[in-house]
Amino acid sequence: MSGSLNGIKVIDLTRVLAGPFCTMILGDLGADVIKIEAPEGDEARNFGPFVKGESAYFMSINRNKRSMVLNLKDPRGREILKELVRQADVLVENFRPGTTAKLGISYEELYPLNPRLIYASCSGFGQTGPYRGRPAYDIIIQAMGGIMSITGQPGGEPTRVGASIGDITAALFTVIGILAALAERERSGKGQYIDISMLDCQVAILENAIARYSVAGEVPKPIGNRHPSITPFTTLRTRDGYIVIAVGNDNLWRKFCEAVKRPDLIDDPRFKTNPLRTQNWDELYPILCSIFSEYTSEEALAVMEAAGVPCGPLQDVGQLFHDPQIRHREMVLPIEHPVAGSLWMAGTPLKLSRTPGKIARPAPTLGQDTYAILREMGYSESQLKELEAEGVITPKAKKE
Amino acid sequence: MSGSLNGIKVIDLTRVLAGPFCTMILGDLGADVIKIEAPEGDEARNFGPFVKGESAYFMSINRNKRSMVLNLKDPRGREILKELVRQADVLVENFRPGTTAKLGISYEELYPLNPRLIYASCSGFGQTGPYRGRPAYDIIIQAMGGIMSITGQPGGEPTRVGASIGDITAALFTVIGILAALAERERSGKGQYIDISMLDCQVAILENAIARYSVAGEVPKPIGNRHPSITPFTTLRTRDGYIVIAVGNDNLWRKFCEAVKRPDLIDDPRFKTNPLRTQNWDELYPILCSIFSEYTSEEALAVMEAAGVPCGPLQDVGQLFHDPQIRHREMVLPIEHPVAGSLWMAGTPLKLSRTPGKIARPAPTLGQDTYAILREMGYSESQLKELEAEGVITPKAKKE
Repeated sequence: MSGSLNGIKVIDLTRVLAGPFCTMILGDLGADVIKIEAPEGDEARNFGPFVKGESAYFMSINRNKRSMVLNLKDPRGREILKELVRQADVLVENFRPGTTAKLGISYEELYPLNPRLIYASCSGFGQTGPYRGRPAYDIIIQAMGGIMSITGQPGGEPTRVGASIGDITAALFTVIGILAALAERERSGKGQYIDISMLDCQVAILENAIARYSVAGEVPKPIGNRHPSITPFTTLRTRDGYIVIAVGNDNLWRKFCEAVKRPDLIDDPRFKTNPLRTQNWDELYPILCSIFSEYTSEEALAVMEAAGVPCGPLQDVGQLFHDPQIRHREMVLPIEHPVAGSLWMAGTPLKLSRTPGKIARPAPTLGQDTYAILREMGYSESQLKELEAEGVITPKAKKE
Repeated sequence: MSGSLNGIKVIDLTRVLAGPFCTMILGDLGADVIKIEAPEGDEARNFGPFVKGESAYFMSINRNKRSMVLNLKDPRGREILKELVRQADVLVENFRPGTTAKLGISYEELYPLNPRLIYASCSGFGQTGPYRGRPAYDIIIQAMGGIMSITGQPGGEPTRVGASIGDITAALFTVIGILAALAERERSGKGQYIDISMLDCQVAILENAIARYSVAGEVPKPIGNRHPSITPFTTLRTRDGYIVIAVGNDNLWRKFCEAVKRPDLIDDPRFKTNPLRTQNWDELYPILCSIFSEYTSEEALAVMEAAGVPCGPLQDVGQLFHDPQIRHREMVLPIEHPVAGSLWMAGTPLKLSRTPGKIARPAPTLGQDTYAILREMGYSESQLKELEAEGVITPKAKKE
């Protein structure tokens, strides 16, 4: 079965998270992703936990790539990169703005070698503007981009999203930019430069918060797990965990009350209509807590489902492994790694009928494909020996 | 200036959030997006706040689209849809699985009319598996997909991400699936079916949480705003808000302590190294709180920047409007709407050098382009009158 991007060659100069997550998706879609690593390797190779010396963090976001060690500080390293660029469709990098110019591999320098090249940069703040040179970490981007100010319990602290949504969102937009440029290249025959900023992407995903502020003049605050105007539409604690229920209208409210054997609540003047329930939440919430404290999550969900009330369990990462839907969709699955053995990771959500995303190979060990790629490029064995002896393509010895 | 997807025609059957966010991005990229609405319109048109009767929520995610009212329950409505499908490149829908089959517009029924058609479905749980028919809301997907279990303060409640990340992530992956299928169609000449599930997408963005659990056997928990292993790397309260600092190593720790005039902390045996700071966080945190309670956020950031400590303000949605970087990148900007007037919304992060994303038109009023589109298709004025009289293309009168 072929991939959507078969035949597309990607030069991957990315490290850590946003860039590698982007090139992983290109790899899942069938592109030939050549991950170029400095002799010391992607920093993420040093992030624990480790399995037989291999980083689980690194392995989980670098599948479907080949690894080539190339010292870009050596002029011969840069020459090899330029040869690769001549044959490539896409280059992705996530250095801090200015770094590629220092290394002599900026878009301006590489574009003349291959006018069809699509060169994507993914950075914290973008390549332009007053903050372009600043260091960016996910939490700084989440903080500046507004999402933390609307996440958390009401009246509590602004809260970081537990996944690195600053990096991941930028990764997804970088993929979109690259694929859009590929589509455009079919018409124009030309590549172009793509400048994705993590901060831009955070602003882009705030959906209605900006318009709401613009119209109502009210700064959106954290509202915890409630819906702003539909009640009850929230998480609730059970005997052994949490569930979510979504009682979207008065008819469902009636069914809900009957299901939990509290018909008295249906016409209770405090809770009879959705606006009343929303207004009197402080009185309703303890009643619901007391009701659900009698059920396990499984029991509560069975009762809700039987009554036709939209609901679901609040699952921790361990529980995902046993969810029948997630298993059916192959969204958590083991990948065999030559050194680390079997490692579980997220599958691909890109379910295309003819050319679905797929996991064709585990993450590479540092430089495992250097020789193969150079041989494909026509280098002789003696040239390889020379490049190795001079440290151009040699991985730094790993500390034990 | 042309767009990356100029010449691509998208039939948009989506409502509310995930689907419309996807087609908005296709529109930002220059595709011709024809939003087909039932006579009563996209439900999101009823979500407040309103400006002169127009929903700010709706307007913020439906720019760059034309609106056509079409009653798909009427056979003539379906015939018109099928004519459009013959000329289209992409169809996107986010009904609950099974609905398109009931309406007679499933992929199986439309594909024979246009084998080049890319048909993307975006649903809560996907088109297959035991939960495929279940109702999905963002909070149910966030709960089941694991992200809530790792978001929140340590020891506190699992917390919903304040933006509808369940919908938005699915929207981004749907765009990626569609663009990948367009790339593949250049080689094969064939369209295909795309089945995106919001739950799949939530699992896909957990990054290292799955691998971490798989390797270490420990269920990841909410850890608030701290970094798990680097300290201090967190939010801190100031006199008038919050800031984030990221003290990534012992050298920065020294600079940090000097900057806040607490050189005594540098070699304090509790805080001398990063592992010690991480271990003794409960003692360090109150000291930092007391230090920063003396500064405003602006003062604190000036001190941190002067010392070279990575930092940033925690901004609420109102503050985004004044951030010089966000303004420079045009990520918050006013769009003129013919009825509502000027409405602020998020810009596009898709900064491509030759064919950048752009906002070419505001969100459409219900059915504003019905006639124009039908005339483009060759319908005569008398045919239009007839279709209107029989309610096939007539918007439902708005309640005042």
